[in-house]
Amino acid sequence: MQETKKGLEGIVALDTSISFIDGMQGILKYRGLAIEQLAEMSYDSVSYLLVNGMLPNDQELAAYSFRLKTERRINGEMIDIMRVCNYGTEALDSLRTAISCTAQMDHENDNNSLEANKNKAIRLIAKLPTMLAALYRCKKGETPYLPDDNLSHGANFLYMLRGEAPSAIEAEAMEKDFIISAEHELNPSTFALRITASTLADVYSAIITGLCTLKGPLHGGARKGVMEMLDEVGNPENANAYVLHKLASKQKIMGFGHRVYRTGDPRSRIFKEMARRLADEKGDPTWYEIAESLEHAMYREFLEMRGRPMYPNVDFYSGVIYKYLDIPLELATSVFAIGRVSGWTAHCFEQYMDNRVIRPRAHYV
Amino acid sequence: MQETKKGLEGIVALDTSISFIDGMQGILKYRGLAIEQLAEMSYDSVSYLLVNGMLPNDQELAAYSFRLKTERRINGEMIDIMRVCNYGTEALDSLRTAISCTAQMDHENDNNSLEANKNKAIRLIAKLPTMLAALYRCKKGETPYLPDDNLSHGANFLYMLRGEAPSAIEAEAMEKDFIISAEHELNPSTFALRITASTLADVYSAIITGLCTLKGPLHGGARKGVMEMLDEVGNPENANAYVLHKLASKQKIMGFGHRVYRTGDPRSRIFKEMARRLADEKGDPTWYEIAESLEHAMYREFLEMRGRPMYPNVDFYSGVIYKYLDIPLELATSVFAIGRVSGWTAHCFEQYMDNRVIRPRAHYV
Ligand SMILES: CC(C)(COP(=O)(O)OP(=O)(O)OC[C@H]1O[C@@H](n2cnc3c(N)ncnc32)[C@H](O)[C@@H]1OP(=O)(O)O)[C@@H](O)C(=O)NCCC(=O)NCCS
Ligand SMILES: CC(C)(COP(=O)(O)OP(=O)(O)OC[C@H]1O[C@@H](n2cnc3c(N)ncnc32)[C@H](O)[C@@H]1OP(=O)(O)O)[C@@H](O)C(=O)NCCC(=O)NCCS
Repeated sequence: MQETKKGLEGIVALDTSISFIDGMQGILKYRGLAIEQLAEMSYDSVSYLLVNGMLPNDQELAAYSFRLKTERRINGEMIDIMRVCNYGTEALDSLRTAISCTAQMDHENDNNSLEANKNKAIRLIAKLPTMLAALYRCKKGETPYLPDDNLSHGANFLYMLRGEAPSAIEAEAMEKDFIISAEHELNPSTFALRITASTLADVYSAIITGLCTLKGPLHGGARKGVMEMLDEVGNPENANAYVLHKLASKQKIMGFGHRVYRTGDPRSRIFKEMARRLADEKGDPTWYEIAESLEHAMYREFLEMRGRPMYPNVDFYSGVIYKYLDIPLELATSVFAIGRVSGWTAHCFEQYMDNRVIRPRAHYV
Repeated sequence: MQETKKGLEGIVALDTSISFIDGMQGILKYRGLAIEQLAEMSYDSVSYLLVNGMLPNDQELAAYSFRLKTERRINGEMIDIMRVCNYGTEALDSLRTAISCTAQMDHENDNNSLEANKNKAIRLIAKLPTMLAALYRCKKGETPYLPDDNLSHGANFLYMLRGEAPSAIEAEAMEKDFIISAEHELNPSTFALRITASTLADVYSAIITGLCTLKGPLHGGARKGVMEMLDEVGNPENANAYVLHKLASKQKIMGFGHRVYRTGDPRSRIFKEMARRLADEKGDPTWYEIAESLEHAMYREFLEMRGRPMYPNVDFYSGVIYKYLDIPLELATSVFAIGRVSGWTAHCFEQYMDNRVIRPRAHYV
């Protein structure tokens, strides 16, 4: 047996045609299309691309969007359960319970065929925003809003949180966030989910694995960490001292660093521009300015201390966008999941289609 | 980047001091102790060994057993939720919901310190049997039985399923099953769970990942598959034809084969002897004889067709034991989880203690 590579850094675990990352040049593509181009499309198109392998034509897109819209609704029994299972602060835990329960209720739950699993996946992609918004409303003791079929995936989610349609730029920001969060090769949640799929467990079980793994503060949980940091820093002038203190005490700063990107994360650049536009439109530059000061301080101080710069990752300006969209802190990681579920689904089926159990060895010490 | 090893076969993913497998010689050790020796101990001792790194002395064992016993009980709100969330046939799905909900209710859920996570883990090890038995009773519309503090981990589980204490040999069989199922290096559920832990997600999330991955028919789900096969074969005389048909149609036979063991699985030998004793004691050799015929047929026919023999794995005679213990089919995979949770816990903390995010690459095709 060969030497252990801690964190499996650089080890090629499997073949995929879902996404491509060039970490040196900062390139990300889903199914051959650059993330910058995808960011201008609708979430439904990108979800279709990920799940089916190519972009839909107009007719295919209309049919897919129609299917997602019909599947947005959740039933009354589910709402009852959300009301009873209403414990804890972190929405991701409630969402995990709700997905698990949705599996139990699914009339195809005992059918582990590829086709049945595809149906389950579509239901999850469609229902996650509704479930999360309903959990949020139930938690506050209020009645959930029904989905609005006239609104896009992103706009409808904001509508169900607030009870009023978002502005055009807010809808655009939410949609972009879902698209850019949708897929990222073998990040930890996707890799863990592929292991679950490799035992031929059903798609609900696989997606729950993804969700459990996304929760960690070193992965999707970092988005919430960024929002907390923006609050804590409070003012652009405090950014430098904050960074210095964190680095000196060897604490990680949320929303920075990446295993693969070594010259900056292309997703961060798109989110930064979106955050800047939100700041302009809302006439409130605070969050954006704090973020930019943190970015500059981190670049400078990390370079100074370690001889190489440190760049923001996907979670950094996404956290800023969530601030401008008034996404409640306790929902942040789950909102990430709403976007990511299309990529998770694609990986789950890629694994099923050409499967071998993923089972490495350990070195006994 | 190097070549892709399908299923990560032979790739060393990490260092561990929890268990050791020699696949050629058929050796399994937990923390340096042979599985044959551990099988004669109590589950509490073995659980302590896995979680704490060494065997307990008498005082430590008494304290650990006491702690587990005090934590066996689940609260009334949990039972209420089990009654409401009572959908679906597969108990593992209900157990997954119940664990997720237990996390939501845990007063330490928002505390992600090592110490709080240790408490959560102990609660799960103690409560899983109670949860599963309660789910089973609620499903039948009956009131759960309270745990019996005078009974061992294994005996108490059977008691809570049935409402009466099991015989001495049944208690021994259940306890052995939990011990031998407790740990197995980087099997898929454990590896997936370590990825979840590597993002610093909490122990509940990690264990739920383990459970979701165990569910697959190529992993823990095989135990249920074995029970179904025993029913289907029905008679030792049918074993050969069954094996021939399955192999000819390129279907997998549940409970056979292993990525690592190439000369037989030491766990299977212990379970086989236990199954034989149960058959004797109960005066009902049927299940044992069907199983032995399948074992022989598989050895012979696989050798004939592929030039190498094929041996039963851990799930094969365990499925036979579950038949003798009257474990309901839909509970089989979850009963496996009750044993495995100690190993999962050990891996979760080994990951936390010396962490780096597990994040390999994919090869884009
Ligand atoms: C993303 C992340 C997990 C990548 O992990 P990784 O590949 O193991 O990181 P590296 O090995 O390249 O880190 C090299 C060094 O930089 C440091 N470092 C990395 N990210 C850092 C951060 N955000 N803040 C401070 N220091 C950081 C590490 O501590 C390490 O220091 P060491 O050599 O003294 O141990 C890591 O950068 C991180 O924890 N970031 C913060 C959490 C986050 O934003 N996660 C979301 C990822 S999309
Ligand atoms: C356990 C298992 C997943 C190991 O997977 P693996 O390491 O990828 O298996 P291998 O690569 O060594 O298999 C080699 C060949 O034997 C065949 N094989 C393996 N297990 C078999 C089984 N139980 N029945 C029939 N054929 C089997 C495989 O199909 C493969 O054939 P191929 O070369 O024509 O594709 C596999 O043996 C299996 O699926 N067993 C049945 C499910 C089970 O009992 N799981 C519980 C594991 S504890």
